[in-house]
Amino acid sequence: MEPARVVIIGGGFGGLTAAKALARHPVRVTLIDRTNHHLFQPLLYQVASAGLSPADIASPIRSILARQKNIEVQLANVVGIDLANKSVTLDDGALPYDYVILAAGMHTNYFGHDGWEQYAPGLKSLDDAIEVRRRTLLAFEHAERETDETERKRLLTFVVIGGGATGVELAGAFAELRRFVLRHDFRAIHPQEARVILLEAGGRILPAFHEAMSGSAVKQLEELGVVVRTGTRVTSIDERGVSLTTPDGAEERLESASVVWGAGVAVSPIARSLGVPLDKQGRVIVEADLSVPSHPEAFVIGDMMRLDQDGAPLPGVSQVAMQGGAFAAKSIRASIDGRARGRFHYFDKGIMATIGRSRAVAEPFGFELSGFLAWLAWLFIHLWYLIGFRNRMIVMFEWFWSYLTYKRGARLITWSGSHLEAKPHPDEPRG
Amino acid sequence: MEPARVVIIGGGFGGLTAAKALARHPVRVTLIDRTNHHLFQPLLYQVASAGLSPADIASPIRSILARQKNIEVQLANVVGIDLANKSVTLDDGALPYDYVILAAGMHTNYFGHDGWEQYAPGLKSLDDAIEVRRRTLLAFEHAERETDETERKRLLTFVVIGGGATGVELAGAFAELRRFVLRHDFRAIHPQEARVILLEAGGRILPAFHEAMSGSAVKQLEELGVVVRTGTRVTSIDERGVSLTTPDGAEERLESASVVWGAGVAVSPIARSLGVPLDKQGRVIVEADLSVPSHPEAFVIGDMMRLDQDGAPLPGVSQVAMQGGAFAAKSIRASIDGRARGRFHYFDKGIMATIGRSRAVAEPFGFELSGFLAWLAWLFIHLWYLIGFRNRMIVMFEWFWSYLTYKRGARLITWSGSHLEAKPHPDEPRG
Repeated sequence: MEPARVVIIGGGFGGLTAAKALARHPVRVTLIDRTNHHLFQPLLYQVASAGLSPADIASPIRSILARQKNIEVQLANVVGIDLANKSVTLDDGALPYDYVILAAGMHTNYFGHDGWEQYAPGLKSLDDAIEVRRRTLLAFEHAERETDETERKRLLTFVVIGGGATGVELAGAFAELRRFVLRHDFRAIHPQEARVILLEAGGRILPAFHEAMSGSAVKQLEELGVVVRTGTRVTSIDERGVSLTTPDGAEERLESASVVWGAGVAVSPIARSLGVPLDKQGRVIVEADLSVPSHPEAFVIGDMMRLDQDGAPLPGVSQVAMQGGAFAAKSIRASIDGRARGRFHYFDKGIMATIGRSRAVAEPFGFELSGFLAWLAWLFIHLWYLIGFRNRMIVMFEWFWSYLTYKRGARLITWSGSHLEAKPHPDEPRG
Repeated sequence: MEPARVVIIGGGFGGLTAAKALARHPVRVTLIDRTNHHLFQPLLYQVASAGLSPADIASPIRSILARQKNIEVQLANVVGIDLANKSVTLDDGALPYDYVILAAGMHTNYFGHDGWEQYAPGLKSLDDAIEVRRRTLLAFEHAERETDETERKRLLTFVVIGGGATGVELAGAFAELRRFVLRHDFRAIHPQEARVILLEAGGRILPAFHEAMSGSAVKQLEELGVVVRTGTRVTSIDERGVSLTTPDGAEERLESASVVWGAGVAVSPIARSLGVPLDKQGRVIVEADLSVPSHPEAFVIGDMMRLDQDGAPLPGVSQVAMQGGAFAAKSIRASIDGRARGRFHYFDKGIMATIGRSRAVAEPFGFELSGFLAWLAWLFIHLWYLIGFRNRMIVMFEWFWSYLTYKRGARLITWSGSHLEAKPHPDEPRG
């Protein structure tokens, strides 16, 4: 008998965990991703703030799975899934399956304001992070040469939109970058000129955490000099800055040359192609075994799935994705062996966010932890989960190094792929 | 009295050495570069072949010079030098000087065929290297999914044009990448399908080396499976490959998806703005003290200068640039102190090129060395000169790691800056 064909869409935490759990079982697995690397997204803000190199937090998917002989990896674009014909539709073909695991995650969403993207990049991919890094470092460079005071202030105003974990971590990292980089490297600009402003439309930052932890995060951010503004709604973004509405309804304008969008994500449009009920966020409402209703051979896991537990939807965090990936793999093996599937139960180990050097908040197993201890826990767990011995070693060295020296290892302004398109031409005078 | 104003154009080996030599002397130094980083160019081919990360071989210029309080760094574009008025012309202003050191180096030159650039990027900047890496890794990815045998062969044909040090090192690195990456990571393609072809128009590769060393390099390249073709002239490059003329005058066609141009460089156009005699390569013919004729306050160093020693022009290598930078700085200090300047004499420590793991050729102080010993010497010297303790540590670890495991640390396909222009949109389905 031919082994069953399993197609996994997405090489993130969920898809990769599922693939590993199917290794050496009598199935043929194809993992499809549109990038060549698994990205350790929780550290993306460190690339954006020049602390780590892109390669430190990403590993080629086919390297990770090289020894799993029953798994092949394809770099391809999935446009949809044809549930009726059990076939994954690619932009250049189709791939039949016996089982499919959809784990394509989220992408940045501007809630209908797609024009904002060019002024306020999101932070979901390596390319995003390199772009944010480039803009941030260029703002310092331009400020150093700027003689107009108003313009220099604009160049040194960094706005982060969205008070979730990404926004908090990025704002903290910018504040530290500003503080330590400005200290010695520039002659004309001064640390006190640079401002980092974190905007949150809701009532408090880190809404997924206990209220006391949100308060602690604000305090720790403010110690670093970050201005935290809650209840503040962004009404438009353009190349000169951000317009917003304050909690008391007043209009206000923030002039800024560096705006990052951490406010919204949306589920991959592949979800819509299924033709099954989605929730308001576009997530696929799954059965207790993470399968699509009436399609026990099709699973949706991670950020794309909607499943309630203890009266609340499971959050879009890496732990939910990884546990879901392992569970879907186990269910496929059960079906092949003729055993019954279980019900998915998420085991919540807790959540955490880092704010800076020795600063963090964490809720391991429901406990509350903040400051240095939370930061140590964060450090340990992130190193533990970082894929690949090599990456762990390099990141450990980078962190140890910057802890000792306050230096950043990856302060590069590069344009990469774009150099054949719109950037200053490499043949122009170099000076 | 106001301290003398020294403007240095270019933060490469020459400019940076000059700046360091002027630190803590009673001069005000402005170093201008159009990138924010000093690039360790001899290792650029390792970024292009996914062995090192961009940040491993580049350091922010302002970090390197942060503690030199009399030096400021500006990210700016120099368009020319007005010798008569002692002023550097920027694209957005001008900078007066008492002394100027022009060290803007070379850029890739297609000898009038600028249309070739999009099909065959050069290898002079980090962006170039990231682009070559992207194309190389994508070729493997596309080949894995390609069912047409002719097209797969084209995707797996890597052509390097130019048998100088850059071309030789890149061809060797591609050959190793192919051999070790293909071994485990791909399912449909096989090592023997991938070809690396090194094209050289002249009679032998590495013409700067002794003839015996050229022969040894060919042998070592061939051991790695590189096809070395000398006396072969490229007549055109397009998106499908390269057309060439063989030594016996026949026309031939090489179908290839990855072509790298290492055949030509030209001096920065700033040289022309001086209005002084240039040599055939566009280099500025300088006096024995490296100054421009009739302009003792203006120096040209490194790849941009033409100076003959022992009957031959000094080569465009980092050692000439560094010694020239130190000499120009010393001459400026002499003039300020009212002392006479000396004559520049280049002390040749030798040249070297690496071909792969344990493979290299070197001519230290005129001796000939090849194979493992040459490689060890290469390793030691490159680590020694690599700027910054941190970079040295990371690179040492990367090399040690890949020596042990045959893995590459930086196998990333990124588009970076381009993502707001022409690449697949980040909001598209991820699969």
